[in-house]
Amino acid sequence: MYDFEFLLLQHTKFIKNRSIFMASKLTPRSTDYSKWYNELVVNADLAQHSDVKGCMIIKPYGYAIWEKMKDQLDRMFKETGHQNAYFPLFIPKSYLSKEADHVEGFAKECAVVTHYRLKTSEDGGVVVDPDAKLEEELIVRPTSETIIWNTYKGWIQSYRDLPILVNQWANVVRWEMRTRLFLRTTEFLWQEGHTAHATKEEAIEETHKMLDVYAEFAEKYMAIPVIKGVKTASERFAGAVDTLCIEAMMQDGKALQAGTSHFLGQNFAKAFDVKFAGKDGGMDYVWATSWGVSTRLMGALIMTHSDDQGLRLPPSLAPIHVAIVPIYKGEEQLEEIREKLDGLIQSLRAAGLVVKFDDDDTKKPGWKFAEYELKGVPVRLAVGQRDLSNNMIEVARRDTGEKVMVSMDEAAGQVQRILDEIQKNLFDDAFAHRAANSRKVESYAEFKEEIEKGGFLYAHWDGTAETEAKIKEDTKATIRCIPIDGEQEEGKCMVTGNPSSQRVIFARAY
Amino acid sequence: MYDFEFLLLQHTKFIKNRSIFMASKLTPRSTDYSKWYNELVVNADLAQHSDVKGCMIIKPYGYAIWEKMKDQLDRMFKETGHQNAYFPLFIPKSYLSKEADHVEGFAKECAVVTHYRLKTSEDGGVVVDPDAKLEEELIVRPTSETIIWNTYKGWIQSYRDLPILVNQWANVVRWEMRTRLFLRTTEFLWQEGHTAHATKEEAIEETHKMLDVYAEFAEKYMAIPVIKGVKTASERFAGAVDTLCIEAMMQDGKALQAGTSHFLGQNFAKAFDVKFAGKDGGMDYVWATSWGVSTRLMGALIMTHSDDQGLRLPPSLAPIHVAIVPIYKGEEQLEEIREKLDGLIQSLRAAGLVVKFDDDDTKKPGWKFAEYELKGVPVRLAVGQRDLSNNMIEVARRDTGEKVMVSMDEAAGQVQRILDEIQKNLFDDAFAHRAANSRKVESYAEFKEEIEKGGFLYAHWDGTAETEAKIKEDTKATIRCIPIDGEQEEGKCMVTGNPSSQRVIFARAY
Repeated sequence: MYDFEFLLLQHTKFIKNRSIFMASKLTPRSTDYSKWYNELVVNADLAQHSDVKGCMIIKPYGYAIWEKMKDQLDRMFKETGHQNAYFPLFIPKSYLSKEADHVEGFAKECAVVTHYRLKTSEDGGVVVDPDAKLEEELIVRPTSETIIWNTYKGWIQSYRDLPILVNQWANVVRWEMRTRLFLRTTEFLWQEGHTAHATKEEAIEETHKMLDVYAEFAEKYMAIPVIKGVKTASERFAGAVDTLCIEAMMQDGKALQAGTSHFLGQNFAKAFDVKFAGKDGGMDYVWATSWGVSTRLMGALIMTHSDDQGLRLPPSLAPIHVAIVPIYKGEEQLEEIREKLDGLIQSLRAAGLVVKFDDDDTKKPGWKFAEYELKGVPVRLAVGQRDLSNNMIEVARRDTGEKVMVSMDEAAGQVQRILDEIQKNLFDDAFAHRAANSRKVESYAEFKEEIEKGGFLYAHWDGTAETEAKIKEDTKATIRCIPIDGEQEEGKCMVTGNPSSQRVIFARAY
Repeated sequence: MYDFEFLLLQHTKFIKNRSIFMASKLTPRSTDYSKWYNELVVNADLAQHSDVKGCMIIKPYGYAIWEKMKDQLDRMFKETGHQNAYFPLFIPKSYLSKEADHVEGFAKECAVVTHYRLKTSEDGGVVVDPDAKLEEELIVRPTSETIIWNTYKGWIQSYRDLPILVNQWANVVRWEMRTRLFLRTTEFLWQEGHTAHATKEEAIEETHKMLDVYAEFAEKYMAIPVIKGVKTASERFAGAVDTLCIEAMMQDGKALQAGTSHFLGQNFAKAFDVKFAGKDGGMDYVWATSWGVSTRLMGALIMTHSDDQGLRLPPSLAPIHVAIVPIYKGEEQLEEIREKLDGLIQSLRAAGLVVKFDDDDTKKPGWKFAEYELKGVPVRLAVGQRDLSNNMIEVARRDTGEKVMVSMDEAAGQVQRILDEIQKNLFDDAFAHRAANSRKVESYAEFKEEIEKGGFLYAHWDGTAETEAKIKEDTKATIRCIPIDGEQEEGKCMVTGNPSSQRVIFARAY
């Protein structure tokens, strides 16, 4: 259907450009999954390392995806009755040590502000002014339970002030020695919900409700199947009574904790002396939850769906849904294409889709095809002169790589159907991958063999921290969670033979 | 139209509650403007001081207003071709001193991170681990020009990489000794745009374009009239060639700088060695702009419109547009009101308005009236039994305090008209106030007298920093700006008598 001579010319250019691109193509996943990931994050313009150790720069394309995630999560938080607020970046050092477990968990990885002024040095540079030393050092928040509960103390007098359902979008800092873009960085962006309740039951209900919000977000928008579970004591948040989580499986079979929701009991209320007068007039400590997801979700999104050609983005979170590449010679042909496609573009945009008509004449169509593939744009349209006269357009879908010629009049409908299919297909792919890499193991010998193949291993465990630690030391596998919807099944711990009532999920993890 | 007996009962309750409220009513503006402001910010649940010196907590109601401002600004940035990105919180100390003027401006007010770990002390608390000292101290960003231009160096090779039109929403820290909620805090939230261009003309155009965006936002959404102008050298951003600003007048006649847009020339490109190959192959330094507004705008919003009863919010930025207070006895009457109002509420919501039907039975109608007044909800509806049977509803507008009885069937349309009127009326009020408090002065003697009355004084100035400094020392007034749209008028400096071609605006300022 193309003008063949012209197509040949384009194809030659395509090959030429393609080969330029090939030079910087990604390391295949099968060769080195970790290298593939790092290259993809950088080449697809998602993020890069900064000169500040462990801190990343989120580039516009990566940030646009994060923004879509943020907007959708924010909507879901508000629909479940939460409001946003903002608390200080700095936490007085003494606050951190008010909750005993909390300080254990976070003291080792804190950025500490000790001074509040610089002065010019003799060599023209700047030095820290020794006269500007803080009386009490400030910690850059690694999480905000302490500063928030110190504030809630002033907000809560009686049951009428409860519940408090507050969320904060913020940056936090946890000093990390080994970092990876999105997955583990010293500074990262996140949201942290902090709620206060009159009863234990209500707080537990909130903990589960927010876990459900996270699970729904992961599955419906990120197209990532997740398992909801409870963390073991050793994997619990420092200061929590119980930590719930959603766990996802990456393509290399490793687990990634994608979100956590903590039931904090009265731990922080006691540490900060937050009591309320109940309906009956009696005083009691307030019950608490906290829950968060971070830019780490970007890592999960990338590692769940992408392939050796680049990203595969679920349409729900794609900054660009449809990229249109016109194939033309000269301004006149371009104008003709533009005019002909105007109706299609209008109707796609009217359907709420972001459409990019790429008329950048410094780049060849082949280069553009590879670029949109790398960036995971779900649908790419291409149209040349011959197509135009036949009233046809080429529709290529990113997830399967399939291309079909479609009548111009049916293109809008077709594109929307394909986008729905892609959203579903990515989830199904990930679900099938997880199913294929999840299995029950019965003995520790089998476990040690199977864990080398990756994936989720469902095994019986005796519930002790000692056994858990031994397995971790022997195999580097950790208990990802005790699945909430897990089948109750009598069994014996694969290590000690002691009784167990339910299988737990083991995996190596990010 | 009310059931009088019932109304009397309500009125008694109202007075009773009102008097409770009265006990905590605001200091009138005329008594102490500054105290009124502080009380209003706290009582209207906008923000509060935290235990961390100079850092504020933005409470949910205040944050909801900031979110609306943020969303609208973000939309306007995107419509003008900008994308968001995210850069590190920390800046290596040495970066700050690469641009000579920049370091002068910011070194004095920096939070400095010197360590990255705490350890438990013998008394069970925590101390800074002396072994975890950073080789180079990190500065918590007071603004991000340095870290961003250090990054742009890697992004820019040729003219094809330009322009870069990037914005960041972030928290920044400038150590302040005297702070006021929203107006001057050690940590604040803001956006900072950082753009890179191939030509000087394009960068200057961008600087003006973003100033126009700020002015449009201030006038159309915040309902605050602003004057666009150029800062004098002494008021310029540290590192800029030119600083443009929008200046607003508060109710006490003081000026507030509401946004700035800087033409940075090639200063940062030179400091960070960012060159590009032009179309002709020659190398040149890149041209830059930066521009920002912050949570300080919240202060401007509050101080421009509010009165002794509380906030007056422009409907464009109000988290709740319409509050409905049902006046009833017993669940049955409440149900009846609810049913009767269902259609009205639906149609207001369908028009995109946020409607709160306040059926909280722990609070009396009078308390609610005062509360919505304090919080600046633009329209309050009240309905009792008698109204219901007459198919009428009371509509009260916050800006003028007017109340009218409206037929239920016309209420939706009426409310929407009133909201439009309020938006316009707040702007007109502020505009009239500014006009009434702006005047030309001819002599320095007159100036010194007039400045005590507050407001904007248009006077001739000889263009020297010396004269400017003398005026500031004598009167505490600064040159707010050289108005961009100012009339060209030959005159003589009121202090030195030297020639001047245009009046500049003097005022005392926040």
